[in-house]
Amino acid sequence: MTGLRLNADMGESFGPWAMGMDEAVMPVVDLANVACGFHASDQDHMRRTVQLAVSHGVTIGAHPAYPDLMGFGRRSMACSADEIENLVLYQIGALSAFCRAAGTDVHYVKPHGALYNDMMKNHDILAAVMRAVKAFDPGVALMTLSTRDNHPVRSLAAAHGVPLWLEAFADRAYDDDGHLLSRSNPGAVHADPETIIEQARRIARGETLTTSGGGELILEADTLCVHGDNPDSIAAIRRIRDAIHQPAP
Amino acid sequence: MTGLRLNADMGESFGPWAMGMDEAVMPVVDLANVACGFHASDQDHMRRTVQLAVSHGVTIGAHPAYPDLMGFGRRSMACSADEIENLVLYQIGALSAFCRAAGTDVHYVKPHGALYNDMMKNHDILAAVMRAVKAFDPGVALMTLSTRDNHPVRSLAAAHGVPLWLEAFADRAYDDDGHLLSRSNPGAVHADPETIIEQARRIARGETLTTSGGGELILEADTLCVHGDNPDSIAAIRRIRDAIHQPAP
Amino acid sequence: MTGLRLNADMGESFGPWAMGMDEAVMPVVDLANVACGFHASDQDHMRRTVQLAVSHGVTIGAHPAYPDLMGFGRRSMACSADEIENLVLYQIGALSAFCRAAGTDVHYVKPHGALYNDMMKNHDILAAVMRAVKAFDPGVALMTLSTRDNHPVRSLAAAHGVPLWLEAFADRAYDDDGHLLSRSNPGAVHADPETIIEQARRIARGETLTTSGGGELILEADTLCVHGDNPDSIAAIRRIRDAIHQPAP
Amino acid sequence: MTGLRLNADMGESFGPWAMGMDEAVMPVVDLANVACGFHASDQDHMRRTVQLAVSHGVTIGAHPAYPDLMGFGRRSMACSADEIENLVLYQIGALSAFCRAAGTDVHYVKPHGALYNDMMKNHDILAAVMRAVKAFDPGVALMTLSTRDNHPVRSLAAAHGVPLWLEAFADRAYDDDGHLLSRSNPGAVHADPETIIEQARRIARGETLTTSGGGELILEADTLCVHGDNPDSIAAIRRIRDAIHQPAP
Repeated sequence: MTGLRLNADMGESFGPWAMGMDEAVMPVVDLANVACGFHASDQDHMRRTVQLAVSHGVTIGAHPAYPDLMGFGRRSMACSADEIENLVLYQIGALSAFCRAAGTDVHYVKPHGALYNDMMKNHDILAAVMRAVKAFDPGVALMTLSTRDNHPVRSLAAAHGVPLWLEAFADRAYDDDGHLLSRSNPGAVHADPETIIEQARRIARGETLTTSGGGELILEADTLCVHGDNPDSIAAIRRIRDAIHQPAP
Repeated sequence: MTGLRLNADMGESFGPWAMGMDEAVMPVVDLANVACGFHASDQDHMRRTVQLAVSHGVTIGAHPAYPDLMGFGRRSMACSADEIENLVLYQIGALSAFCRAAGTDVHYVKPHGALYNDMMKNHDILAAVMRAVKAFDPGVALMTLSTRDNHPVRSLAAAHGVPLWLEAFADRAYDDDGHLLSRSNPGAVHADPETIIEQARRIARGETLTTSGGGELILEADTLCVHGDNPDSIAAIRRIRDAIHQPAP
Repeated sequence: MTGLRLNADMGESFGPWAMGMDEAVMPVVDLANVACGFHASDQDHMRRTVQLAVSHGVTIGAHPAYPDLMGFGRRSMACSADEIENLVLYQIGALSAFCRAAGTDVHYVKPHGALYNDMMKNHDILAAVMRAVKAFDPGVALMTLSTRDNHPVRSLAAAHGVPLWLEAFADRAYDDDGHLLSRSNPGAVHADPETIIEQARRIARGETLTTSGGGELILEADTLCVHGDNPDSIAAIRRIRDAIHQPAP
Repeated sequence: MTGLRLNADMGESFGPWAMGMDEAVMPVVDLANVACGFHASDQDHMRRTVQLAVSHGVTIGAHPAYPDLMGFGRRSMACSADEIENLVLYQIGALSAFCRAAGTDVHYVKPHGALYNDMMKNHDILAAVMRAVKAFDPGVALMTLSTRDNHPVRSLAAAHGVPLWLEAFADRAYDDDGHLLSRSNPGAVHADPETIIEQARRIARGETLTTSGGGELILEADTLCVHGDNPDSIAAIRRIRDAIHQPAP
């Protein structure tokens, strides 16, 4: 049995443009990373998404991003640490108003896209994100990528007084350093459902994964990132859910 | 003596563009209406403005607006009541994050520009704003324009459980209904400092004003709106402050 | 036989969000109303849309709107006539750069959504749009809604030296004044394909339509507005096309 | 005597926020780099700026930037080459509409801020900008930074069929490679007016400058970038103007 929780990006529609299958995904995940209007969503979709999460008992996290709707927050921007601290704070606050209106609150923060990648590469940015999370509420957790050695990130989080939730991926290959293998490499993204289920099961049980270089890797993980863009992927989430909640033989 | 407090719009700079003299105005007012990024300001200026207010012991209010930076929130937009409720909620929440980071909170909400005018004309919009304020926090007050007859607004506020702060103007003429005389009329804005000081003093003491039509008007007021765009106007705020805090002869 | 051309809104995707079935619609229409980034589209989608139109020999028109991506240009904004003139000019110019890059040019302008409705109701706004069209290029036409009496609009266009293309709808009911029956009325939008085809045929031949009040209406029309959101509606466009190009019996 | 022309950034106000002293600068420069709404300006300011330039016989250039109003286009964004090509094209087109309305046209393009820096460092970006300029109009020139060795940029421009205007700075120190010394170094920006005038005169006459490392540098230059933010800097522009138009002794 495992405490591994499933997280998914939610509320990524914007104005008249729909994205995602939130109604189908919400019932099968534990944590909703809710877009805050900088890379996706707007105040109307944020309210609906929060209400949907609450109606399914799903825990809500803020999913802040660089201010780049057109680029969906996937383009890195050369922001200063102070600018990053403030844009994260703004977005958490905006989302929290809808949480308060729905009788809940923001429980964690998972930066989106280029901001997520940048904070994992640059600890000045990571520290800025942590300052924002802590300034908003000392009880709110930060979700970061689990790698082979999580000590540096754990130390930084401890120094900032920010609880950490480590995230792993069942559908991505890892390199020998325990980082996600870049998508430009063949085999970076698992297509075979059985491979994905097996990787989820192994992560849940703390078993070794095989890296792209053939090495062994054990990943600490509090949560697994899943995607629900179509009926197949939603079926896959259900199978992952079953797999990680199954007792080891 | 009077409990009339002075409020001013603050934090209206945006990116590299400066506006206002916040450093000079903050020490002479009681309430700071802080722009939330929809008509002015951005996350960096919001943080600085909140810190400045806290350092002067000034009470912070959210100053939400229609999403129209270029038009400075002065152009009415045909938003539905739900859209208005959500855009007000988003902006209060965003500002509240900076308040929390500075150890304070949003104490009141004063809609800006066209949204302020629209809510005074249309009680469906006013009710939407009240729902947002109440959903964010039942203790937060809404600032509205005091007119000859404040009963309808008071009733609506009571029905929504929202505390009301009535605002009056010392530098504007009132028409016979107790509404602000439209700026397109001659004499709509008082230029003479003595006239402004005298109107402030009369409002503070609950004395009658003379309307543009020659009638009499007594305005209830919890707060007086002041502007600090230049050294002269800041000097005028100081004189208003002295006038309203002076015991009646 | 008829010279009635079919126009459709195109290029309404934005960033990562898809809208419409442009690849399927482009081959069956004559005129593409291309969004210019204010209510939909962005520079990348504009380039692709222009290239798609050129590859199908479709004539390109600019589809300018109020600056309101989130509201898809459907919310009226209280802009001055000068502001409207300039926002139309900006959008035509932006689109024209992609036309030049593709060896063509903007041939007409059809305002979008709330701006279209506002210009039909308010001739100060209509005149502002005409000034923009004329300032950009005296050869560019303006598309407006055909009503029972097109003389006022024709006079204004003549005074501004702007060619006029009158547009009619096959899928909407008309009231006795020859305006589109508001969508809030039952029967405002035709659902039955046969009704739509028949109305298209009648407009093409200059035959009378029956208004919502039971009266007769003959509409002048240079172009018919069609929509292609799904396979059924694209099949409907093909049938309209056949109907209006069919010789009268 | 010299053909060196003076260029300055213009039209950087946005909505209600003023920036720059365009009315005072326009009479003393030859080339106006006009912001296009992505890092500064909006359609109303663009129209006024173009009209002001025309009234002073100043040649108009487009000043396109990354889409980042809040950051004033100073923050690099990880855009693809295609994205950069399209955002430059969009902005040139938008400005050209106001030029057409004023009886002139866009004569050159000078990318702004981070986009300017990025194109000088990365020739994939530079080539993308050139494709945009060429696609808009083969007669339009591109302004780039003159360095010790301009051959690579000249070759790329020739290959794209884009005329090149090389720009130099009178108020900045150059390093041994003939690049601008980074502002983080002491002495990077000249404060002394006499130093600036002398550097302008030397550039105009093709005389050697002394680099920060003590070496010699001759800069080819078609234009000199000047700034007019306050009365002193406008007086400095006048002196530079006199200095470069003075016959050599």
